[in-house]
Amino acid sequence: MAQKDLKRFFAPRSVAVIGASANKGRPGRVVIENMRANGYKGDIHPVNPRGGKLLGLRVFKTIKDLPSGIDLAIVILPAQATPQAVRDCAARNIGSIVLVAGGFAEVDHAGEDLQQELAQASRETGVRVLGPNTAGHISTPADFTSSFFPLGEIPRGGISYVAQTGNFTGAMMKHIMSAENYGVARCIGLGNTVDIDETDVFEFLATDRHTKAIFFYLESLRRPREFIEIAKQVTPKKPVIVLKGGATADGAKAALSHTASMGSDDRILDGALRQAGVVRIDEFSHLFLAAKAVAPMPVPAGNRVGFVSPSGAFIVHISDLCRQRFNLSFPDLMPRTMDRLREISPPFIRLSNPVDIFPSATVHGMEFAYREAMEAVLTDPNVDAVVSIMILTRELGMPSLDFIPELAKKHPKKPIYISFSGDHACNEEAKAFLEPRGVPTFPLIEDAFKALDILAQARKSLKK
Amino acid sequence: MAQKDLKRFFAPRSVAVIGASANKGRPGRVVIENMRANGYKGDIHPVNPRGGKLLGLRVFKTIKDLPSGIDLAIVILPAQATPQAVRDCAARNIGSIVLVAGGFAEVDHAGEDLQQELAQASRETGVRVLGPNTAGHISTPADFTSSFFPLGEIPRGGISYVAQTGNFTGAMMKHIMSAENYGVARCIGLGNTVDIDETDVFEFLATDRHTKAIFFYLESLRRPREFIEIAKQVTPKKPVIVLKGGATADGAKAALSHTASMGSDDRILDGALRQAGVVRIDEFSHLFLAAKAVAPMPVPAGNRVGFVSPSGAFIVHISDLCRQRFNLSFPDLMPRTMDRLREISPPFIRLSNPVDIFPSATVHGMEFAYREAMEAVLTDPNVDAVVSIMILTRELGMPSLDFIPELAKKHPKKPIYISFSGDHACNEEAKAFLEPRGVPTFPLIEDAFKALDILAQARKSLKK
Repeated sequence: MAQKDLKRFFAPRSVAVIGASANKGRPGRVVIENMRANGYKGDIHPVNPRGGKLLGLRVFKTIKDLPSGIDLAIVILPAQATPQAVRDCAARNIGSIVLVAGGFAEVDHAGEDLQQELAQASRETGVRVLGPNTAGHISTPADFTSSFFPLGEIPRGGISYVAQTGNFTGAMMKHIMSAENYGVARCIGLGNTVDIDETDVFEFLATDRHTKAIFFYLESLRRPREFIEIAKQVTPKKPVIVLKGGATADGAKAALSHTASMGSDDRILDGALRQAGVVRIDEFSHLFLAAKAVAPMPVPAGNRVGFVSPSGAFIVHISDLCRQRFNLSFPDLMPRTMDRLREISPPFIRLSNPVDIFPSATVHGMEFAYREAMEAVLTDPNVDAVVSIMILTRELGMPSLDFIPELAKKHPKKPIYISFSGDHACNEEAKAFLEPRGVPTFPLIEDAFKALDILAQARKSLKK
Repeated sequence: MAQKDLKRFFAPRSVAVIGASANKGRPGRVVIENMRANGYKGDIHPVNPRGGKLLGLRVFKTIKDLPSGIDLAIVILPAQATPQAVRDCAARNIGSIVLVAGGFAEVDHAGEDLQQELAQASRETGVRVLGPNTAGHISTPADFTSSFFPLGEIPRGGISYVAQTGNFTGAMMKHIMSAENYGVARCIGLGNTVDIDETDVFEFLATDRHTKAIFFYLESLRRPREFIEIAKQVTPKKPVIVLKGGATADGAKAALSHTASMGSDDRILDGALRQAGVVRIDEFSHLFLAAKAVAPMPVPAGNRVGFVSPSGAFIVHISDLCRQRFNLSFPDLMPRTMDRLREISPPFIRLSNPVDIFPSATVHGMEFAYREAMEAVLTDPNVDAVVSIMILTRELGMPSLDFIPELAKKHPKKPIYISFSGDHACNEEAKAFLEPRGVPTFPLIEDAFKALDILAQARKSLKK
């Protein structure tokens, strides 16, 4: 039986890059540049038949020449060469391998045979293999990545991703890094799962203190029973959020040619996942949406939202969505909250939750109105989370937003999400100010509630 | 009976601004600045008891002093003063009024009484009133707006909006102008609909040659029967897309305090709207999403999509969504299309629609692979529309995107939508290049398909 512990994948003390390359932009060079950019402190041993030096490192001509004590090899060789590379690594006592190459079962019958051979090499040698057909993995607590996609320094944080698509630690990670302001702990592009599968990684992340929430993109479950068992243990401790591709006949057909996954019976799986406290999402973008919400903020203690809105139309629309699609409610506020809201509003304004802040903002200015209303609602014991939509435009004057991170600090158990209407450039400016200060923002008003709905679901199985 | 024709609203030859103000940022000044910024060529007559000059214009002290021949008055006075203003305008033979003030039935019982009084003044005098409680309206074919929100020059285009929220021609229009690249024809914030309602405006837009597609945000239908009758006539000619707020009990309650709307029975209405060929959407953001899709592109001739994807995971996920939520299909491609795709792909690649472009892009470069695949799929008679997702990053090199507007020109009957993975800044750059050249882009991969699904629904009732 292969060794269970994935510690060497996520915290290798030294690595070999087999198929290292001197050419700019080639995977065998980029992978080393990525490690350097992330401050990896272990030894890096490039392997290439030409030998010589690469980025200041001695290049070994063969795997056999490598020094001993290497924890992990990243193999960037054509598909045909990979089974032998696994055996060569085993001979040098390298117990963990990331296999980048595509061209296996996802391509044709010859590839299927090759994948069988690879699986056999892994099984016989006991070497743990990630891939093939993956852009690699990321482990920021170890300053490490095996990704060959030009990423540079990867922001650190509590989100871990496990994706049954090689691409995830490539272009999709680049998307997160460039469009969002949250950081990641461990990210794994599983690829064709010839050995290491989603359940292995789940087991590791279950007790990983660097991982605050776990997100999966899966096309199949190799070991559904074990996965569900781990889920039952994890979901009381941290949110587990799953997008399962191949849920329909068409999706399943596409999954077959993508990662050669045979879809499990989706309906049975769905029930089991829900029972185990896993939150199932249905849009790829929500892998980022819910992550940006949970990364800097607490999980809400329940589904009762205080909503501060500048527009009656938004209140009407979001009320509809909360009724139709989300399991979120707008609770009645305590008398003292209502008193405070009345104090900051012009007379004769009908007040309730959601709070129409427009009259107060017109009279007292945006900063005062939002600060006081949000403070009142955050203090209310009936409220678990606060969403505010702000209208920002240059012409009306940008308010100081300092009060929002201050409110977040003062109310550390209640998430605050901000959304916008108005001038795009001002919204981008507010995002750039608020998100590094721990307050997530959502360009579309619905998105703040979609994220909250996902996390309120995760809450249900969390203990304490 | 009040006059039916809204022509004076949408193409006034001269206007009065009653409650004009010299103070910067005040609605009574901004409204004039907005008209100027949009090149309004008619006469503007400010009214303010102080008289004097304002922005180079002679200020009249009272409505009575105004010259004759004024088509439209924009009344920016406190609620209490508005019924008299309507009567004063009638006396000066001004037949159309935009009423900006809030403080009517949406506020309290006194406001309800005032609104009754206003309705009576409109009825008795035959003066047509838009509002109250609205930021005004926009009519770019007449270089005109009555909005008091600082908008500047409003981009021209074929999209018309009718919204039962005053805000729409304010902050929400600012959002469209700053975040998107499409233009508008007529936009109306209905407000409390004391007189002019959604059906009046619908009737005008039905035969308006500047309006290519009509979008509604409604909280109630004052005259559902008439609205449905007009819809039956319009939907064979142009897409009519409706977001109906207050669809649920909670939403309806919120609508009551927003625009004092009594919700109609939503289920009955829903069936009637569908039968009349109206497409009903369920997210506020989709008012912008579908507009940006239809503004520069033809409505697809059907629901058969050619999908060019750089990731198997996207194919799996979108296949699921098309099965579960959208009425879109991925048709089999013609043999000659398949031949062409095979020619541009490495050997042994499984090809079908959706097209996994990654292997071809790896071998031939992004520009060649996308251009040839999109050309082949656009030429295929089985395909009604093409969606391409591109991975753009600085490190991999930005491809030239000139070929995309060229393909759009060559295939004028098939919409092309572009979405992205990868580097946010590159995607923004591509958006800034493509959208002014008539190709809409969608930052989230699901959104291109959401938009297409809405327009494929609209297609069903379109003639020819």
